[in-house]
Amino acid sequence: MKTRQWKEKVFDIVSKDDGDNKASRIFDLLIMTLIVLSIVSIVLESFDDLNTRYRTVFSVFETFTVIVFTVEYILRIWTADLLYPGQRHPRLKYITSFLAVIDLLAILPFYLPFIAADMRFLRMVRLFRLFRLLRVFKFGRYLEALQTVVQVIRSSASRLIISVILCFFVMLFSAIIMYTVENPVQPEQFPNVIASLWWAICTLTTVGYGDVYPVTAIGRFFAAVISLVGIGVIAIPTGIIAAGFTSAINRDSDGDENDSKPFCPYCGHRIRND
Amino acid sequence: MKTRQWKEKVFDIVSKDDGDNKASRIFDLLIMTLIVLSIVSIVLESFDDLNTRYRTVFSVFETFTVIVFTVEYILRIWTADLLYPGQRHPRLKYITSFLAVIDLLAILPFYLPFIAADMRFLRMVRLFRLFRLLRVFKFGRYLEALQTVVQVIRSSASRLIISVILCFFVMLFSAIIMYTVENPVQPEQFPNVIASLWWAICTLTTVGYGDVYPVTAIGRFFAAVISLVGIGVIAIPTGIIAAGFTSAINRDSDGDENDSKPFCPYCGHRIRND
Amino acid sequence: MKTRQWKEKVFDIVSKDDGDNKASRIFDLLIMTLIVLSIVSIVLESFDDLNTRYRTVFSVFETFTVIVFTVEYILRIWTADLLYPGQRHPRLKYITSFLAVIDLLAILPFYLPFIAADMRFLRMVRLFRLFRLLRVFKFGRYLEALQTVVQVIRSSASRLIISVILCFFVMLFSAIIMYTVENPVQPEQFPNVIASLWWAICTLTTVGYGDVYPVTAIGRFFAAVISLVGIGVIAIPTGIIAAGFTSAINRDSDGDENDSKPFCPYCGHRIRND
Amino acid sequence: MKTRQWKEKVFDIVSKDDGDNKASRIFDLLIMTLIVLSIVSIVLESFDDLNTRYRTVFSVFETFTVIVFTVEYILRIWTADLLYPGQRHPRLKYITSFLAVIDLLAILPFYLPFIAADMRFLRMVRLFRLFRLLRVFKFGRYLEALQTVVQVIRSSASRLIISVILCFFVMLFSAIIMYTVENPVQPEQFPNVIASLWWAICTLTTVGYGDVYPVTAIGRFFAAVISLVGIGVIAIPTGIIAAGFTSAINRDSDGDENDSKPFCPYCGHRIRND
Repeated sequence: MKTRQWKEKVFDIVSKDDGDNKASRIFDLLIMTLIVLSIVSIVLESFDDLNTRYRTVFSVFETFTVIVFTVEYILRIWTADLLYPGQRHPRLKYITSFLAVIDLLAILPFYLPFIAADMRFLRMVRLFRLFRLLRVFKFGRYLEALQTVVQVIRSSASRLIISVILCFFVMLFSAIIMYTVENPVQPEQFPNVIASLWWAICTLTTVGYGDVYPVTAIGRFFAAVISLVGIGVIAIPTGIIAAGFTSAINRDSDGDENDSKPFCPYCGHRIRND
Repeated sequence: MKTRQWKEKVFDIVSKDDGDNKASRIFDLLIMTLIVLSIVSIVLESFDDLNTRYRTVFSVFETFTVIVFTVEYILRIWTADLLYPGQRHPRLKYITSFLAVIDLLAILPFYLPFIAADMRFLRMVRLFRLFRLLRVFKFGRYLEALQTVVQVIRSSASRLIISVILCFFVMLFSAIIMYTVENPVQPEQFPNVIASLWWAICTLTTVGYGDVYPVTAIGRFFAAVISLVGIGVIAIPTGIIAAGFTSAINRDSDGDENDSKPFCPYCGHRIRND
Repeated sequence: MKTRQWKEKVFDIVSKDDGDNKASRIFDLLIMTLIVLSIVSIVLESFDDLNTRYRTVFSVFETFTVIVFTVEYILRIWTADLLYPGQRHPRLKYITSFLAVIDLLAILPFYLPFIAADMRFLRMVRLFRLFRLLRVFKFGRYLEALQTVVQVIRSSASRLIISVILCFFVMLFSAIIMYTVENPVQPEQFPNVIASLWWAICTLTTVGYGDVYPVTAIGRFFAAVISLVGIGVIAIPTGIIAAGFTSAINRDSDGDENDSKPFCPYCGHRIRND
Repeated sequence: MKTRQWKEKVFDIVSKDDGDNKASRIFDLLIMTLIVLSIVSIVLESFDDLNTRYRTVFSVFETFTVIVFTVEYILRIWTADLLYPGQRHPRLKYITSFLAVIDLLAILPFYLPFIAADMRFLRMVRLFRLFRLLRVFKFGRYLEALQTVVQVIRSSASRLIISVILCFFVMLFSAIIMYTVENPVQPEQFPNVIASLWWAICTLTTVGYGDVYPVTAIGRFFAAVISLVGIGVIAIPTGIIAAGFTSAINRDSDGDENDSKPFCPYCGHRIRND
């Protein structure tokens, strides 16, 4: 049963280092270094002069990173039966897990041009390359805090979804109202309801770039009413997220893992759920 | 008593489906589909090219929707004595109920041109067509959450009204002060107090489009003082609304109907009303 | 002692109506009507065409209002010894009371041109006329809510002052930093530290009109740091004011005068000071 | 042992006045006056006309201030063994203390041109002169409140650092996403990821100057999503700082030194750390 022993050795390496396995520690460090360098490389690539001069360096580094991450992905699938011992379909279970999906998406943009090299997808590929950002979630294996954040978001998912739907309706209604009253006067700023959504977003988040704003008296009246009502609604998902993250931060800095009570994002005090 | 039996059959259909009545379920689905399609149609109509090409489609769909909603409205009034059994004036009671008023307003814009076809009302009609948005509140019969939102707003109505009055005064005073100090320098931006209200709204909600702002030293000084004081005041109705909606969202996602304690939108903890 | 009887009669009229004195009720109504009409008149005067056409109407109304308020002020001082029975210097005590100072300031702008008719003071007079806005505080005698607001502000005065001083220092420091880094590049936008304060105010309140903003890399870096730190500091007086007003609103709508516990402006729940 | 007696006399003067030492009181007043005048001088210097006319006055005052502060710094180091009696290396301990580092940095900009008079450092010197602002922290010896603020920040340092790192990642990711989708359309506004960070900061703090904003449909979609998620995250350090400062303010205005419970900046209620 040589394969079995090999698999166990590989599994010890790819699973999180528990302090005594040197090969595992080196593997973890390699992955983490590549994650950080990936993000740094994305930032550096964006500078035209750097991109022109060191194009091959970026290209070679990206190829190397993807090869390492692909090997890592395959090894993790191969050793999935050791991760979930005694379960049926351990590989399927692993492939559909959060971190494995992240792993796949983070390397997918590299292989996409090989699958569909059509020139029309060029712009799409540019967007797909954003999936490389997901690599930061690979840190989730090493940082407890990041796992906590995911848990917090997952635990408040249902109310987050309802509040986002509510936000979307408030935004859509604001956009329809503003389109109706402003379109006849400034048709190029409010050409249709979807374009008016941009105004609604800028206003209700109170960002207010100033590129689109009502100019008619009735438009300004509705904008005032929408602001007073809508800002309160848009604040809800923001508040839920702030509360979730604050909770994760406090838990992390307190080092108290058992305590699941949320903290107020504004005063940071532990909230009593009684 | 054939009419009575007919009426009972119709009432079973128009009232909320309780699981076993197939006709009622189909009727509910039809109404809900029409509500959603209404909103989608409003959004699509706003695109000039779609509106030009499919004008008749939109027109036929709108006519069909209004006919269905009108028939629904008449049937609900007709069967009102079965909804409120043993009460005097059941129809009057129904017509003045929140959802019936919504039902009427949502079909009214269609009939308005027949009543007053005067060309001067063209722009008004455009505004009245916004009443079609109220159709979404017809969902209130099917979604408990929407009814809860209405209840929450109604329950905090008194403090909402006081805070809105307070907001209005702070805005009016800010507008008067800014008109006084800025009008001599930039009369086209601050022509009168009502126009200055737009500045007050943009500033106190912290949206700050940047189309109107003080340029004199004294105007900027007052703007600073008004900001520091006023933003706190304007935050009150926003906060009340956020708290009300958050309460409704939490209740909905917990599925705990008996628990009427609101949650803080900022820290998400259950508030004790003691 | 005829004067004494007269004085008592006058005192009964000018003091708050307790339900049975018809003259007092009429007097209160007159004062309140004049306060509201004063504010309406200030708004209407701001419209150029109305001001030109009805200049004499506004002038006569303002003269009439000031005469009534002056008579009211004199009568209140005259009857002050009945308001504070058994106290030494009751008139001095009354004149230095909050509402009496308001009463005086609200009529002062009218008499100012008679005292100093110098043309140089024309612009100043325009500003002094803003004191007319203080008339709304005369409502304080009739609305408990307004008195409560004053009390709330007074009770949190010490921490409000400290937080405003803190705000001022954060703003001043932000202005000095931004002046230092941005002045060499855009001297017309950041000519000196006092002018840079306008940038600091716009940014730290998150209004962000967009008339002044940093363009250098180092300026943007400092702007980012200042934003993250400063917005938290500027939120303090805003939060204190919001909490104070929310408390007053809740107390008013609950009709529970004895309860002095503050309410959270965001969730409106009664806060436990334990 | 004459030196010893001299040292003790000097130590009595430079250490905080305890009410009976007249020389110490005069010394404290001199230092505080110089701190305030320093800040006033920085503000006044920024006015071109004042700077041109009174250049020598500012120069002489700055030289005088630095000499006094330098003498103060040297005397404090000299008497450090009396401040920390019985400790080894008392001078090293003092030099590395918070207030001593502030003292040094606050006088350093003056001596810098003597050390490196290279013309290339001119702009750098301008920036280093900002260290003069640190002089306000010298007040820390006299105002307990300022020391409390430092303590509060230090006590919430760990969670502040985590939240700032989280903020930085959210900003960086927002910048990368917006660079990817907007760079092809408006390359001068989003030339690279670092420049896109400016957009991210303006948007996530909801300042929204309006100098940089997405114009493509997909860019606006991502901006909407980033706003809804990101504003919640950016609010966290802001909230922590607000809570810390509010705590310090409340403690100061209550005059209750033993009570270390913080107050919520939004509801002002004493927070229970249980």
